[in-house]
Amino acid sequence: MKIGVADTTFSRVDMFRYVKRALADLHYTGRLERVTVPGIKDLPAACVRLLKDCDVVIALGMPGNKPIDEQCAHEASLGIIQAQVAAGKPIVEVFVHMSEAKTGRELAEICADRAYKHAANAYNMIANPKKLSDYAGQGLRQGSPNAGPAI
Amino acid sequence: MKIGVADTTFSRVDMFRYVKRALADLHYTGRLERVTVPGIKDLPAACVRLLKDCDVVIALGMPGNKPIDEQCAHEASLGIIQAQVAAGKPIVEVFVHMSEAKTGRELAEICADRAYKHAANAYNMIANPKKLSDYAGQGLRQGSPNAGPAI
Amino acid sequence: MKIGVADTTFSRVDMFRYVKRALADLHYTGRLERVTVPGIKDLPAACVRLLKDCDVVIALGMPGNKPIDEQCAHEASLGIIQAQVAAGKPIVEVFVHMSEAKTGRELAEICADRAYKHAANAYNMIANPKKLSDYAGQGLRQGSPNAGPAI
Amino acid sequence: MKIGVADTTFSRVDMFRYVKRALADLHYTGRLERVTVPGIKDLPAACVRLLKDCDVVIALGMPGNKPIDEQCAHEASLGIIQAQVAAGKPIVEVFVHMSEAKTGRELAEICADRAYKHAANAYNMIANPKKLSDYAGQGLRQGSPNAGPAI
Amino acid sequence: MKIGVADTTFSRVDMFRYVKRALADLHYTGRLERVTVPGIKDLPAACVRLLKDCDVVIALGMPGNKPIDEQCAHEASLGIIQAQVAAGKPIVEVFVHMSEAKTGRELAEICADRAYKHAANAYNMIANPKKLSDYAGQGLRQGSPNAGPAI
Repeated sequence: MKIGVADTTFSRVDMFRYVKRALADLHYTGRLERVTVPGIKDLPAACVRLLKDCDVVIALGMPGNKPIDEQCAHEASLGIIQAQVAAGKPIVEVFVHMSEAKTGRELAEICADRAYKHAANAYNMIANPKKLSDYAGQGLRQGSPNAGPAI
Repeated sequence: MKIGVADTTFSRVDMFRYVKRALADLHYTGRLERVTVPGIKDLPAACVRLLKDCDVVIALGMPGNKPIDEQCAHEASLGIIQAQVAAGKPIVEVFVHMSEAKTGRELAEICADRAYKHAANAYNMIANPKKLSDYAGQGLRQGSPNAGPAI
Repeated sequence: MKIGVADTTFSRVDMFRYVKRALADLHYTGRLERVTVPGIKDLPAACVRLLKDCDVVIALGMPGNKPIDEQCAHEASLGIIQAQVAAGKPIVEVFVHMSEAKTGRELAEICADRAYKHAANAYNMIANPKKLSDYAGQGLRQGSPNAGPAI
Repeated sequence: MKIGVADTTFSRVDMFRYVKRALADLHYTGRLERVTVPGIKDLPAACVRLLKDCDVVIALGMPGNKPIDEQCAHEASLGIIQAQVAAGKPIVEVFVHMSEAKTGRELAEICADRAYKHAANAYNMIANPKKLSDYAGQGLRQGSPNAGPAI
Repeated sequence: MKIGVADTTFSRVDMFRYVKRALADLHYTGRLERVTVPGIKDLPAACVRLLKDCDVVIALGMPGNKPIDEQCAHEASLGIIQAQVAAGKPIVEVFVHMSEAKTGRELAEICADRAYKHAANAYNMIANPKKLSDYAGQGLRQGSPNAGPAI
């Protein structure tokens, strides 16, 4: 089993540490490969390279807070989806937008929660694929409290 | 005959139950495979995997009600279409936007109607492909009353 | 020679009848295959299947008049273009937006004109490919009067 | 050497004549193939077919001046880029938006300048690929005066 | 080792010179191939051709300051990402929007900084792929001062 992680130098938080913590807490003993690229628009190609011999890839990115940054995030997300469709393997996108937080501390907290929970999701998708169905329709969230079921 | 279902833990309603009910009402006796992923942007890759040995896939998702959620829905829909174009097999997208309803109960009712009717559509597309032509141009709707023909 | 037609149960007008009328008026004697799907986002996959043994496909759809419907039309159009790029064969998209007309009768008239003229376009593209060059730059329209040349 | 040209019956100006003039002025003696389609959304598939045995394709189109037309132009452009990425060969897109001009005469003048200059670009890209590097960063324009270098 | 560079005649700054300076400063002795095309929408196809025998490509472009130019930039970026996903190799996009600067001098300074730093990124991605991980989450910027880590 092998998990890939792609992250960026543009991001203002090193989210890789939370991925490692989640995988350690889950007693993951498989391989882990990390590739760092400049920005989120470089993530799709990095994911394609990682997916060649990884079972799942976690893509960590932080869109900036200018309008052009939101467009970049949109383009990056479309590329990450295309990479998955082409490979037939999952990439779990973990994007924390700078505009989601008012302070650096708040930004880091959102990153920690979202990266940790999505690393667990990525692990379960390959190690324990039926587990997520127990939570289908339960309104789970990453980076904020769960919304819960509608009724 | 095999039908695939992809759904999410983000959704606040477990729509899979309505798919099962529709297929039971149609006396479907083929195989049924379910894959649950975190959110709607994970659906395209799940559909690609299911389409490898399913004849049709039903993709159940619930976009949130923030602007970024609408963008995610757009990206997910484009990926679901790409997956179909690549595989040459149908994926019936069943998205219920949180913004469509004012209460949890209303949200669940839209989900029930839309998922039930689209599961029947998916079934007919593979089991009875000429049946839908009887309703072409009839203004059918899922999750709301039919609009009916224009004249 | 084989022409495919994909249409939807969502549409409020059965545009297939105008395609048949146009092909009859052109004395088309080749094969004609029709596939009906629920909505416009299901058209790209239907077109891919039809293109496997059709020379051209006509995609008939009617986007609704809510903002989300316009986004669906955009996604469907992108998928229809992707299907053509992948197959290297033409799909003539015939979309009539519900927002184009004030009454059901007006809507039906736009449908009749646009579907009839585009069916003739589809026929000429495969049966008489040089014919359209006679009208290049002539400001032809479907569903409304021709605009004519600029000067 | 072979150059392809795809154009439309929707356009209100026959831009093909300016392509021919440019190629004549450049003493081009290779083959030239033209395919005419109804509108700009039909251009990507036409380009795919032409690229099978052309070295470069010139795609001539004129988006209308309604909001939906701008969306069609966006979709057509994405398809034209996809066709190039798939084929690994260039398509020079020559779009003149109806909204760029106030009168028919002005529209025709923009068409003449843009189509003529881009036909020369297309020719140079295959016949003389190093030539364009002499003008890199020089702020060249087609359909309007050159902007020139920034400093 | 081989690095490709694609640039445009539309750009008002010749950014290739900064790429060469960065690679010289890094003592890069591999091959360097340059392809110049008319505008940013021609970059994806140029990158596809370069990626056939380059390890990485640097795409230099300058979107204009009209609304249509921003849409062109969006389309070009999507194509550049598609080219990477198809090839599984990186393209470092270096776009400087004319709207980022008030004067020609300021525009040139942004170009110099962004092109120089991204050329170094491209070099490191192929020559020293682990180096970028030292800067993951550090808030690096190109064309403006670094943002730095959030906390």
